[in-house]
Amino acid sequence: MELLKNRMIKDGDVKPGNVIKVDSFLNHQIDIDLLNAIGKEFKSRFEGVRIDKILTIEASGIAIAVIAAQYFNVPVVFAKKTESKNLDKDTYESDVYSYTKGKTYTIRVSKKYLNEGENILIVDDFLAKGKAARGLIDILDMAKCNLSGIGIVIEKGFQKGGDEIRSIGVKLESLAIVESIDDGNIVFGEASPSRRD
Amino acid sequence: MELLKNRMIKDGDVKPGNVIKVDSFLNHQIDIDLLNAIGKEFKSRFEGVRIDKILTIEASGIAIAVIAAQYFNVPVVFAKKTESKNLDKDTYESDVYSYTKGKTYTIRVSKKYLNEGENILIVDDFLAKGKAARGLIDILDMAKCNLSGIGIVIEKGFQKGGDEIRSIGVKLESLAIVESIDDGNIVFGEASPSRRD
Repeated sequence: MELLKNRMIKDGDVKPGNVIKVDSFLNHQIDIDLLNAIGKEFKSRFEGVRIDKILTIEASGIAIAVIAAQYFNVPVVFAKKTESKNLDKDTYESDVYSYTKGKTYTIRVSKKYLNEGENILIVDDFLAKGKAARGLIDILDMAKCNLSGIGIVIEKGFQKGGDEIRSIGVKLESLAIVESIDDGNIVFGEASPSRRD
Repeated sequence: MELLKNRMIKDGDVKPGNVIKVDSFLNHQIDIDLLNAIGKEFKSRFEGVRIDKILTIEASGIAIAVIAAQYFNVPVVFAKKTESKNLDKDTYESDVYSYTKGKTYTIRVSKKYLNEGENILIVDDFLAKGKAARGLIDILDMAKCNLSGIGIVIEKGFQKGGDEIRSIGVKLESLAIVESIDDGNIVFGEASPSRRD
């Protein structure tokens, strides 16, 4: 998605450790026009795919999911990362290791909001090693939902999580795939062709 | 807002301790049509008010803020509750006590995304004692921003935080004000008339 890639080049900030900061437009301050373009692009990438609900994970994923949901005309469910007195006790849970935060956390979705046989699109802002996506897939398996696909805004292709998920037959669409970071510059690539469907 | 109140009566769940659970349509599973109606209603409540940016707080606030932002045509900034390696070191911070979670947490906004003189609308899902809203107001004061107003989806009027904020001259608009909970039923009310502008 050229609009996104151009914005990443213009306003993205590469930090040591291959961190790509996009918090001026995606995950701290949010450009709503860009977010709408992202939502429309997901709709076009998943045209013809049956989707009953969008699943994401708090916090940054929520913005993307709700804007995209307008184009799919479906509800959103977001997995919670923090325990709350207000969350149902009856939840599907999965443990996710975050390299960014350097710790494992538990994601939870109330069993009421994932019904057997529903077709679910997962969306999130980043995919690197794919731990969060795999946690969400685990939860969909527990709920006996069908995974319609995964929509990612920025995939760090060099961390291989995306291709691993493609290799198990999942339709994973990333709007920008970062192939490498070369001297502080973002180099974009494509999903491994051998693993594309 | 009748659509919201009717939905709260139909699908809201009152729990011991005056907890109103709306996670089937607002803060775990999200009904996008209702969220759009909420966004439009905020636009109408703040018609003619100068707003350059919407500020909210993760996680549930994000969904409301980004949908509303489409009607205001402004960017969103959300305060973060968790420390992250990726967040700038240079942040405005405020401590907020959460009665729901029973603990104090620190909210942070990068200084880059709040500029002196900007007109800011705060939005959030709930307001009870008003601690989160006051934390956000603190941050706007530090940033020398102007508070254009506060838009709340559900105010627990009996917990008085809303009227305290109105009494300091803030334009606070809540789309549903719960006056009391009577034998498990939600009773709606209005903001204290003496304190309305």
